[in-house]
Amino acid sequence: MTPGQGLQSNSSNKMAEISHLMDSEVFSAFTTYGAIVLSKMMIMSIVTAFFRLTRKAFANPEDVPGSKTPENIKKFVRTDDSVERVRRAHLNDLENIIPFLGIGLLYSLSNPDLTTALWHFRIFAAARIYHSIAYVTPLPQPNRGLSWFIGYLVTWSMAYRVLKNKLYL
Amino acid sequence: MTPGQGLQSNSSNKMAEISHLMDSEVFSAFTTYGAIVLSKMMIMSIVTAFFRLTRKAFANPEDVPGSKTPENIKKFVRTDDSVERVRRAHLNDLENIIPFLGIGLLYSLSNPDLTTALWHFRIFAAARIYHSIAYVTPLPQPNRGLSWFIGYLVTWSMAYRVLKNKLYL
Amino acid sequence: MTPGQGLQSNSSNKMAEISHLMDSEVFSAFTTYGAIVLSKMMIMSIVTAFFRLTRKAFANPEDVPGSKTPENIKKFVRTDDSVERVRRAHLNDLENIIPFLGIGLLYSLSNPDLTTALWHFRIFAAARIYHSIAYVTPLPQPNRGLSWFIGYLVTWSMAYRVLKNKLYL
Repeated sequence: MTPGQGLQSNSSNKMAEISHLMDSEVFSAFTTYGAIVLSKMMIMSIVTAFFRLTRKAFANPEDVPGSKTPENIKKFVRTDDSVERVRRAHLNDLENIIPFLGIGLLYSLSNPDLTTALWHFRIFAAARIYHSIAYVTPLPQPNRGLSWFIGYLVTWSMAYRVLKNKLYL
Repeated sequence: MTPGQGLQSNSSNKMAEISHLMDSEVFSAFTTYGAIVLSKMMIMSIVTAFFRLTRKAFANPEDVPGSKTPENIKKFVRTDDSVERVRRAHLNDLENIIPFLGIGLLYSLSNPDLTTALWHFRIFAAARIYHSIAYVTPLPQPNRGLSWFIGYLVTWSMAYRVLKNKLYL
Repeated sequence: MTPGQGLQSNSSNKMAEISHLMDSEVFSAFTTYGAIVLSKMMIMSIVTAFFRLTRKAFANPEDVPGSKTPENIKKFVRTDDSVERVRRAHLNDLENIIPFLGIGLLYSLSNPDLTTALWHFRIFAAARIYHSIAYVTPLPQPNRGLSWFIGYLVTWSMAYRVLKNKLYL
């Protein structure tokens, strides 16, 4: 269908070609740190569930444990400060980890220096893990604010490189 | 600019090379299921809009239909249980589909067994579609809880493989 | 480890291969617009912080400026219409920009016509930037509704092509 396709017709070669992509050290590092921050984000779901169950604060009538009497529903379908705190931390993850993944992927493909790239990824991952701890504990400010800002700066630094390198409008 | 660039200088060859990536069966499967779960997630916006219009519960004064009198704004800018339910389902999609896309992409590039990969994608997509139905209807628990958990486990299973295969810290 | 690996054993060649991906014009365009909409989304965090500070409406007790007396906490930990408005705009970005990034990546790899692809990306980016302005100002409807709908249609148009081209179930 495409001109070059005949050159590599068997599927193990194609597989090999894709695994080459995985051989780039920057891309491997991005893979590792991307999986780490996504795993961290997924843990927030468990933390939310933990607080909902221990604080007995549910979002939906059908989640109320035991009999679904109107009194029980009124009592247990409520907001709780700790639950809302974890939810804000989770939402903050979504707002910050998504740009990191999108911009980080483009950055990884832009042939950056390996050491520079590694430090971008490491600092971002450390900042986001610290951010979650600071948010859920909670630690006094500026712990949370600063860790958010560091992750934010790292993402902008990668965005700057991506947009500086190639603007194709 | 890069050493190997002279080998394939015309752009149709480059295109061919990219389309090779699309020829990998695992990657094609990921593409298909990724597009399916993202499309499902996009439908939640329509469901929210539908409930907002039929329940006449809006988030912003400027969305109130008819004349924007203070009485109308007070009456129609409000939260509604059904609307909030769809919004929670939508947010749960964001919290779960994003890790699936990120980790699933890395997983697809890690040369997994095709059948294993296909079942990961199929189970995840089915679980998330069932989750939305269970949330919006709503079906009694543990319908929603279980479908969430299945999707969650599938994503962890892929994350495990990605992180086991190559840690590049 | 994989059959074709011996063909390109040194790492600069592998790097070259990855940078070929970046040479595709459609992919470069996607990179540019993806980075633009993600940057726009990141700016929403700053706008939220700005409104939180000027309106003195905080989400957490530890964010309250000055002494954390119970009176101060009660006074400043509150919701504010402008802050909530920016937060809704931000959440709407998450709900719409994520499908664009996911589906847009698959679309970019599906060998689309360059001009068609460029207009998809351009219209989406313009619609989302206008959407944020319309939401935060706020402009009267249907400014926001229409800009949301245009971005939504663009994403569906790409999803249609991706799913039509190759369904691998």
